Amino acid sequence: MKVLFATGNPGKLKEVQAKFAPMGFEVEQLVDEYPEIQADTLEEVVHSGLKWLFDRHKTPIIIDDSGLFIEALGGFPGVYSAYVFKTLGCDGILKQMVNIENRKAEFQCCAGYVDANGQIITIMGKSHGNLIHEMRGSGGFGYDPIFVPDEHAQTFAELDIESKNQISHRGRAFEALSKALKEL
Amino acid sequence: MKVLFATGNPGKLKEVQAKFAPMGFEVEQLVDEYPEIQADTLEEVVHSGLKWLFDRHKTPIIIDDSGLFIEALGGFPGVYSAYVFKTLGCDGILKQMVNIENRKAEFQCCAGYVDANGQIITIMGKSHGNLIHEMRGSGGFGYDPIFVPDEHAQTFAELDIESKNQISHRGRAFEALSKALKEL
Repeated sequence: MKVLFATGNPGKLKEVQAKFAPMGFEVEQLVDEYPEIQADTLEEVVHSGLKWLFDRHKTPIIIDDSGLFIEALGGFPGVYSAYVFKTLGCDGILKQMVNIENRKAEFQCCAGYVDANGQIITIMGKSHGNLIHEMRGSGGFGYDPIFVPDEHAQTFAELDIESKNQISHRGRAFEALSKALKEL
Repeated sequence: MKVLFATGNPGKLKEVQAKFAPMGFEVEQLVDEYPEIQADTLEEVVHSGLKWLFDRHKTPIIIDDSGLFIEALGGFPGVYSAYVFKTLGCDGILKQMVNIENRKAEFQCCAGYVDANGQIITIMGKSHGNLIHEMRGSGGFGYDPIFVPDEHAQTFAELDIESKNQISHRGRAFEALSKALKEL
């Protein structure tokens, strides 16, 4: 079955194509910037985005949205992680975390799918870990250099891409979504 | 003429009613939570909100959106000021500003109006000032205790409500909007 994946990121497209091909899904890129709403949760953002895209395209579509949720900061930067990264960066997060002992954080990814009838599924993938005190590593992007996933010693930016995809929030969300779609 | 003002804030409603009554507009409250999109500017948020509300109500409507834009932080917290206040508060902003000499900031308010034909106007009001190093005053709300408007010695939280409304971003935006509507 053909499914469109609305993303501007070719790396993400490849990752998702690789994950869905064995399930019999042929994933093609959809270049269409949908509005993301302001909300407390990624699920709400993804749900609203899928609804908007389906109203326009009337065909099965996949999207995802991710964020870093820091426990001691009430979930900040959360749904607005991309904006906060653009304005404050990793340095701003480290500054905000000065003198804070609880370094627990989780990356969340919400993967969503709308079927040919407009029915929406959203599935969360999470990666728990801790924030360190300085940036380490040059791989990945965003907050990867300051996040060490549980049961690992390296940051997301130090892990090679395959290792990261196996334990990452996005890897987990798309893994779960591909399995859920196969059940449909 | 009757105009609906979509807000959940009775204080704001009174302020707007007082400003629009002399122009011949009877402002009534509309209780309907419209989606706010993620965007770089308040204009985009207001424009999209008005479009959504007009599609539902097909009648003239006013809304507004505000934010604090800090020069040294690339405009942060900007459009997401409410979320950042909820998670980090004034303390978080002060922490982010430690060792930063440029304390320039501006409050922005975008007031918008959609007419009976779906035509949209947005108008910006700004209040320029500086961030201080500690909270002062108990009036106002949000970031008012850390913001001193230019040509004043008191924070927005120390000024009485009338003085604040005269120089505030919201006061200015609604003043300009009421005049623009009168010209129509």
